[in-house]
Amino acid sequence: MKLCILGSTGSIGVQALDVARNVGIQIVGLAAMSNIDLLERQIKEFNPLCVCVADKTKARELARRNVACEVIAGGEGLCQLAAMGGCDTVLSAVVGIAGLKPAVSAIQARKKLALANKETLVAGGEFVMELAKRLNVPIIPVDSEHSAIFQCLDNKNHPKRIYLTASGGAFREWSAEQLLHATAADALKHPTWNMGAKITIDCATMMNKGLEFIEAMRLFDLKPEEIEILIHPQSVVHSMVEYSDGSILAQLGAPDMRIPIQYALTYPARVASAFKKLDFTTCGPLTFHKPDFDKYTCLRLAIDAAKMGGLMPAALNAANEVAVGAFLQNRISYTRIAHIIDKTLSAYNLNGSERNLDDILAADAWARRYAETIAIA
Amino acid sequence: MKLCILGSTGSIGVQALDVARNVGIQIVGLAAMSNIDLLERQIKEFNPLCVCVADKTKARELARRNVACEVIAGGEGLCQLAAMGGCDTVLSAVVGIAGLKPAVSAIQARKKLALANKETLVAGGEFVMELAKRLNVPIIPVDSEHSAIFQCLDNKNHPKRIYLTASGGAFREWSAEQLLHATAADALKHPTWNMGAKITIDCATMMNKGLEFIEAMRLFDLKPEEIEILIHPQSVVHSMVEYSDGSILAQLGAPDMRIPIQYALTYPARVASAFKKLDFTTCGPLTFHKPDFDKYTCLRLAIDAAKMGGLMPAALNAANEVAVGAFLQNRISYTRIAHIIDKTLSAYNLNGSERNLDDILAADAWARRYAETIAIA
Repeated sequence: MKLCILGSTGSIGVQALDVARNVGIQIVGLAAMSNIDLLERQIKEFNPLCVCVADKTKARELARRNVACEVIAGGEGLCQLAAMGGCDTVLSAVVGIAGLKPAVSAIQARKKLALANKETLVAGGEFVMELAKRLNVPIIPVDSEHSAIFQCLDNKNHPKRIYLTASGGAFREWSAEQLLHATAADALKHPTWNMGAKITIDCATMMNKGLEFIEAMRLFDLKPEEIEILIHPQSVVHSMVEYSDGSILAQLGAPDMRIPIQYALTYPARVASAFKKLDFTTCGPLTFHKPDFDKYTCLRLAIDAAKMGGLMPAALNAANEVAVGAFLQNRISYTRIAHIIDKTLSAYNLNGSERNLDDILAADAWARRYAETIAIA
Repeated sequence: MKLCILGSTGSIGVQALDVARNVGIQIVGLAAMSNIDLLERQIKEFNPLCVCVADKTKARELARRNVACEVIAGGEGLCQLAAMGGCDTVLSAVVGIAGLKPAVSAIQARKKLALANKETLVAGGEFVMELAKRLNVPIIPVDSEHSAIFQCLDNKNHPKRIYLTASGGAFREWSAEQLLHATAADALKHPTWNMGAKITIDCATMMNKGLEFIEAMRLFDLKPEEIEILIHPQSVVHSMVEYSDGSILAQLGAPDMRIPIQYALTYPARVASAFKKLDFTTCGPLTFHKPDFDKYTCLRLAIDAAKMGGLMPAALNAANEVAVGAFLQNRISYTRIAHIIDKTLSAYNLNGSERNLDDILAADAWARRYAETIAIA
């Protein structure tokens, strides 16, 4: 395999390189937002042919360090890297809507796509899946939940239902009253997974599960009523598939993202690793219960947007990104996150838009601007 | 599908006919031990071409009732039915070692074999699997645990380990002291599954899990060290497969045998049913722990026999059948079951025996006689 990793200095990217070490995967391309110190060390270890730095100033700085590979820059550079010759697989772990265009480039260039970037499917799902299907390009999920479902699906039977499991986030035990005073620091205390700030807040609001709901619809061609969300605080069962005969397949494992990252890269083979292993004698009782949609307003908003379809999920995602950003900067209270998203979706006019790349990005940009005006107000 | 059910009046057989009703499977043959009243009703509903009654007197009695099909008798009849023309699939739910020869007949006649009879694999596993492989005949497990593993295996990756789950039986909470006074009535109170008397006692002693351990070795070509047993009192996770990358696949479902029976018959397709469904909001916390081998002596004996291999599992199974029979008749105490098996295996001389059908049956017969002498003593 000749792998290109978009977002190599982020949490998923760093773990993907650990997988590359374990499996012995050749790295041909790396891309980072701005962390050129880490990127430089990655270049020295993995000898890629080309790297891209999204921040153009940082890209020039890296080039001046005389690294042993081509250095390209910006969003165009990211798309160029995703389509580069001498690469057969692209792992997209770009953060945010910036991941959409490079993912499309990779598919158009017929690269197998291991996908960690949520926005590619949340905002652009219908467009992206149709393109991948037409060009016969496999999209393998990296997210632990979608990887679990991917591992539990068989190609002979459509599932009756999938169960997306959710830890319930940092506020699982908090009352509505307590949530009024929740701070970013509170929300960043995730009970089981160790991740970046944006996604940890999304876990607290359960918007993360809402985005995964939309991703799952697109990736596995499911109707909203075929997806059920279960709070499972132990994060041992990563998700499940129920078949028409009542049989349920589940994927379990230690909460180590390297397991689903590796499977996305080695599929259909599996490779032994020294990653964390699940121990049934210490993992404690496994519990499941339905989420309280009154408490998790963001989750309800996401499922509503999923049902409306079209560009509504793109607007939802953009509004959420703005709201979470404002919350992390302590500019708004926790409960304002859902409020901003709700107001943005209510104001969004779906009429007359196609689902092509330009319209998806326009919906994203519109919702971002609109949400920002409410966040400031 | 044209199905023949061996053991149609037993617990599995009756549920298999319920599956046949649900799926709309054509029944071409039925076999019972002696319950000709139920068999007669089954004949009226399902119109098989031929039925067999193992008890020859009962067979003659059924024939005199002028049922609308051929009636054959005895063990030879069972083998004849298993190989009958106009049938493509045989479900063997015969009880005990009597199931071995008909299973071999079915395989030799190239019938797909859905297997519920444990002895076919416990006593004859190496011989039977080699024959099935040579003739390219699929053997699909019916047991809930083996069905679970079958559903979790993929054909690209050998498992690192399988987890056979066990309810722990009626005596899960009993101390060694209490077990000294355990009666058959106590042992028959199974916490989660509703089954026949012999298998319910086997659950209490965990010999059932030991026999399943041996079955799993044969069916999935596993080494003893690749099988781990976990007590899982809720019987929701029916078994699991761990792969080299740390990913674990599990099969879950309501404790309804019709689910694995149906899957064995419809595989690789799945068919919708009104069978019991699992409800995660009511199934309670799922717990797992390792069995106490000092308490479950029978389980230890079974694993030891599995490791010794050859005809030792055949002798183990026969000694267990005698011991459980004596216990059910209140002729021996609960703790004597393991003692009888232990003494029989210690006395058994493996030397000079092949693993052909005659030697398997001879080992079975020898162990039965020997165990009986200890049971009487």
